[in-house]
Amino acid sequence: MDRSNGVTRRESELENGAAMEDVGAKRSDVEREREEDESVEKIFESEEVPSWRDQLTLRAFIVSFVLSILFAFIVMKLNLTTGIIPSLNVSAGLLGFFFLKTWTKLLHKSGLLKQPFTRQENTVIQTCVVASSGIAFSGGFGGYLFGMSSVVANQSTEANNSQNIKEPGLAWMIGYLFVVSFLGLFSVVPLRKIMIIDFKLIYPSGTATAHLINSFHTPKGAKLAKKQVRALGKFFTFSFLWGFFQWFFTSGGDCGFVNFPTFGLKAYEHKFYFDFSATYVGVGMICPYLINISLLLGAILSWGIMWPLIQDRKGHWYPANLGESSLHSLQGYRVFIAIAMILGDGLYNFCKVFGYTLYGLYNQFRNKSVLPVAAQSRAEPSLSIDDKRRTELFFKDQIPTWFAVTGYVAIAIISTISLPHIFPQLKWYYIVVIYIFAPILAFCNSYGAGLTDWSLPSTYGKLAIFTIGAWAGASHGGVLAGLAACGVMMNIVSTASDLTQDFKTGYMTLASPRSMFVSQIIGTAMGCVISPCVFWLFYKAFHDLGKPGSEYPSPNSLILRNIAILGVDGFSALPKNCLTLCYVFFIGAVAICGLRDAVGKKRARFIPIPMAMAIPFYLGSYFAIDMCLGSLILFVWRKMNKRKADAFAPAVASGLICGDGIWTLPQSILALAGVNPPICMKFLSRKDNVRVDKFLGS
Amino acid sequence: MDRSNGVTRRESELENGAAMEDVGAKRSDVEREREEDESVEKIFESEEVPSWRDQLTLRAFIVSFVLSILFAFIVMKLNLTTGIIPSLNVSAGLLGFFFLKTWTKLLHKSGLLKQPFTRQENTVIQTCVVASSGIAFSGGFGGYLFGMSSVVANQSTEANNSQNIKEPGLAWMIGYLFVVSFLGLFSVVPLRKIMIIDFKLIYPSGTATAHLINSFHTPKGAKLAKKQVRALGKFFTFSFLWGFFQWFFTSGGDCGFVNFPTFGLKAYEHKFYFDFSATYVGVGMICPYLINISLLLGAILSWGIMWPLIQDRKGHWYPANLGESSLHSLQGYRVFIAIAMILGDGLYNFCKVFGYTLYGLYNQFRNKSVLPVAAQSRAEPSLSIDDKRRTELFFKDQIPTWFAVTGYVAIAIISTISLPHIFPQLKWYYIVVIYIFAPILAFCNSYGAGLTDWSLPSTYGKLAIFTIGAWAGASHGGVLAGLAACGVMMNIVSTASDLTQDFKTGYMTLASPRSMFVSQIIGTAMGCVISPCVFWLFYKAFHDLGKPGSEYPSPNSLILRNIAILGVDGFSALPKNCLTLCYVFFIGAVAICGLRDAVGKKRARFIPIPMAMAIPFYLGSYFAIDMCLGSLILFVWRKMNKRKADAFAPAVASGLICGDGIWTLPQSILALAGVNPPICMKFLSRKDNVRVDKFLGS
Repeated sequence: MDRSNGVTRRESELENGAAMEDVGAKRSDVEREREEDESVEKIFESEEVPSWRDQLTLRAFIVSFVLSILFAFIVMKLNLTTGIIPSLNVSAGLLGFFFLKTWTKLLHKSGLLKQPFTRQENTVIQTCVVASSGIAFSGGFGGYLFGMSSVVANQSTEANNSQNIKEPGLAWMIGYLFVVSFLGLFSVVPLRKIMIIDFKLIYPSGTATAHLINSFHTPKGAKLAKKQVRALGKFFTFSFLWGFFQWFFTSGGDCGFVNFPTFGLKAYEHKFYFDFSATYVGVGMICPYLINISLLLGAILSWGIMWPLIQDRKGHWYPANLGESSLHSLQGYRVFIAIAMILGDGLYNFCKVFGYTLYGLYNQFRNKSVLPVAAQSRAEPSLSIDDKRRTELFFKDQIPTWFAVTGYVAIAIISTISLPHIFPQLKWYYIVVIYIFAPILAFCNSYGAGLTDWSLPSTYGKLAIFTIGAWAGASHGGVLAGLAACGVMMNIVSTASDLTQDFKTGYMTLASPRSMFVSQIIGTAMGCVISPCVFWLFYKAFHDLGKPGSEYPSPNSLILRNIAILGVDGFSALPKNCLTLCYVFFIGAVAICGLRDAVGKKRARFIPIPMAMAIPFYLGSYFAIDMCLGSLILFVWRKMNKRKADAFAPAVASGLICGDGIWTLPQSILALAGVNPPICMKFLSRKDNVRVDKFLGS
Repeated sequence: MDRSNGVTRRESELENGAAMEDVGAKRSDVEREREEDESVEKIFESEEVPSWRDQLTLRAFIVSFVLSILFAFIVMKLNLTTGIIPSLNVSAGLLGFFFLKTWTKLLHKSGLLKQPFTRQENTVIQTCVVASSGIAFSGGFGGYLFGMSSVVANQSTEANNSQNIKEPGLAWMIGYLFVVSFLGLFSVVPLRKIMIIDFKLIYPSGTATAHLINSFHTPKGAKLAKKQVRALGKFFTFSFLWGFFQWFFTSGGDCGFVNFPTFGLKAYEHKFYFDFSATYVGVGMICPYLINISLLLGAILSWGIMWPLIQDRKGHWYPANLGESSLHSLQGYRVFIAIAMILGDGLYNFCKVFGYTLYGLYNQFRNKSVLPVAAQSRAEPSLSIDDKRRTELFFKDQIPTWFAVTGYVAIAIISTISLPHIFPQLKWYYIVVIYIFAPILAFCNSYGAGLTDWSLPSTYGKLAIFTIGAWAGASHGGVLAGLAACGVMMNIVSTASDLTQDFKTGYMTLASPRSMFVSQIIGTAMGCVISPCVFWLFYKAFHDLGKPGSEYPSPNSLILRNIAILGVDGFSALPKNCLTLCYVFFIGAVAICGLRDAVGKKRARFIPIPMAMAIPFYLGSYFAIDMCLGSLILFVWRKMNKRKADAFAPAVASGLICGDGIWTLPQSILALAGVNPPICMKFLSRKDNVRVDKFLGS
């Protein structure tokens, strides 16, 4: 279990480091006072935590419903235009707060307020909205689901027969989502313990949201907390305004600070650049150094060494006439080697946890203990005040494992029976296979998201397209089967990481796991109805939906369909040596994990984490550079003033993450309103610039 | 004398503010100790100031000679390519230090060192190099002097007859420079007292250089000084690296951070943008708030209101078919209204000072006092430790006023006799008139530079072109007469501000005014020989020198010649209503100055300074925005921690100014070596961007 400790070692330091550290003899009274203030839960001590039933108020769900509709529109628009959707956790938390705070203030003034607005209630809203708006993304309206339609199919010359086409329909879409979406929820229940209590994963966005919610509800009188809130507020404002400022310069696809070739155009081509993202600098400040360095190492290994080497074999290993984004070319290596490595690390840890769990269950069975397995098997001797209180409340309201397992199996059976009725091409045994492997992948994804804040459901979705599509074959509607399988997989994997993230927020705000679970169920149900309806609106309102060059081209639908067309040819469709490399990296990942466990905690600190290394393989290294900058800032800050850095770094980081996060909301609204940024900050090589100047001059 | 106090009120606060201020009861011993450390001269107390003769060492002049040649090449290249030349004070100070420090270290190791390297000697080098390389600019090799040649003349259809042409020649150029350049020096001598002691002007670059030199020579053991040096070093490095980083993105004329349309493209067209210049942010931190706000007000008045209004009258007030840079069009209003306002303020203050001086002379004559006039008439009651010590040394080695006046008159007579031999078109009475008015303009320019760091010799040069050219008339070689007069004027005006700047540096480093004066004479003499020789090298080496589109187009030569061609038609050549507006602004400037004196010190703080307001009229408001940002930073810093801000702001500001200043050296070397930046960071409107994307795509 070295990894979990290695990874989260800093997390506990961040919260009570100063109290443990020897600051020296020269400390004044003021300083000593401050230190006592540093525990968040000490500040909230006077505030009663409502029972899990009281956390679930009607008003919370009314607010959630309104916000869900708002976010569904935003996500749908982004889905159908660029296909890039930012994390909305923070926006949900903040807007939930403002809605309900205004409400309760009004009620309070009129004397009608019965129950005060607690941070737990705030978390419930946040969770519900995230669950609901998550469906708008994982429902695949700008992806696999719309990729089944004839509009998209007719853009390819292959597989555009009726067997591989299914037109959108409101009824079947709602039905499909209901059958598919709840499964992820139940797979999350056992995960939550492992990820949050045992592995103590960071979940940077979740942690940042929790800091935000905590700061909003901080009772008056807490000195340091006030200062932290002020620091958070300052960096929140900065980050928000920075996002706003950046926006003005992004009128085109390759414009703006996001495309700043910080280290030159050559490095930019290889995705080495600093993209001025406040979010990822903040994430880097929250993540342990090891993670950030692993990311950078992975980036250098892949984009710095491997991809250029493979690119030199263009024409030999893969056809030279293909675009960079084709899975038959370099992109194929990127995607599949990353998947192999993620699977290697994920599988290793899954087996390890599974082993421990079995062993724990065996012990539990013998001792008839009611305490949870994992926590019991490795109770830590020195937990901080915060962690003690949080763990206590986390375990107070249990969701029994039998309930989760029964739920999962029951829903799996229902959907195995009902799905083939919706998609005859998707045979029942495909679904069974997916449901057997899905929890492993859900584990991988939520583990990866916990480490690095990157959730990669579409990567796993592509895996499903490939395997199921190949299995079904082109002649048996493999394209449609692949897309449908992609949906099943994405829903589980995406929900798993989103909701574990929420559980982390809940953990840090003392929200009951039960109220979170109920909120997630309600949110998911809302999403299953709201999202298809919103999509239907778009579908009926804009007749050129999905056509290239139109206002809503839905780019991902076409990409996913093309992958499916590729996939039906099986692994043989992969470029040369790709599969071999995948094997190598899979085994490498397992070996590194084994090594990390073998050398002991102390030395494991110097061995990179394969999961973290794999993520930049696919995405590029720009965010790794952001995160390393965050690490660097923290490092220098701690060198200069360790006490202050430990006390304020989480607040500063949360401010950076949340400000940028909230900015996505007005940004999306601007996009919805059709307001485009006025300027393009473009980066041209000297040669191109001379040409452009001539062109513009004439 | 309110102005001078209003302007420099903060200067003294910056240096000993903390000592005077009530920090409260909670001050620790450490803090009290620190405050005592804050006087720069207290730190240097133990170091003996060498006599003025000992400050002038042979080694200093050898180093100066080498650096002078280096800078002459750099300035000449810049002159002939873009015509924009940065201030090289800082580079000169720093390089002088490194050269001589290495030298003395080597000598010290070999045991041969007789005299230690002092900061006074450092200042002497700096002054000598600035005086010498100043000639490379004010000599007009990329301006009026080369504008006389047939290469430039043949680019116009007018006035390209032999009467208006004089080909470059090494002999006459050296002679001309010797006759013209020393005049400025003698006009500086009386100025120096008024500007530095009476008006306590800031001279931001001079102050920054002094801080730099002081920091290099700080004896060991001074606590706060060490911290200040570290702050200076940190911001120096940052500013240098920032300049370096910016360079990569400036492969074209409108590229890079210098052209960042911070407030949108529309505002950028009206020159409202933040140009990310570390220099001017630093300058803003050194200048008083009132100056910066005056600059901004002037910018808004001119570029925000007046120029757009005048532009609307295009076709009525001035011909619509002319380019923006033509003096017949909008540019004419900009240049001449600015000159009118500068002249108004300058003349008002000149008259005031002249009156005081006469009154003082009268008193001196009656009392036979030997103390300097101005200081005697208004001895300030509470000078800081630093100011006391500096003023004392400033007055120790006097340069008698009779010496300055005699020198000025003698050189004026020599040049009045000899100049018509070089340029027969330039009658002796033109020169007499120039020499009568030149001290006033020299006063204006060095006063303006002291306030805002902007020296505008070419503006005054244009004035000379206009007046003398119009007087001579086209048929009597007015174009050549105008250009020659421009040279005479520019040399005086430019030397006046550069050398007063140096005297400020000398004042702050306890360098003797006498050693400075000698160093300036030697430097000027060096420059009069080095600069023409370097130009001759360029002239002979590059045969297409001065031709448009060639490597060395010498843009300013053509511009100045065109102004001269305009000028021979007299003021009637100015666009409609321009002269009226000039009168209005001249009178307005005098009125505001009068008002400032009338309302008393306290209220004068809220009345802007016309001189500062006029500068952005001509240049645009970008640097005013930089400087206001500097003010804002200082303001917020002082709000947060007044003591710390007062102690460290000058160091931080100097670091910012010097780092950027030194960067110009490698930048110039890169330009000389023909290394161009690789990337262009371009700013396009959305519409243009779409066009460019299409163009680049095809």
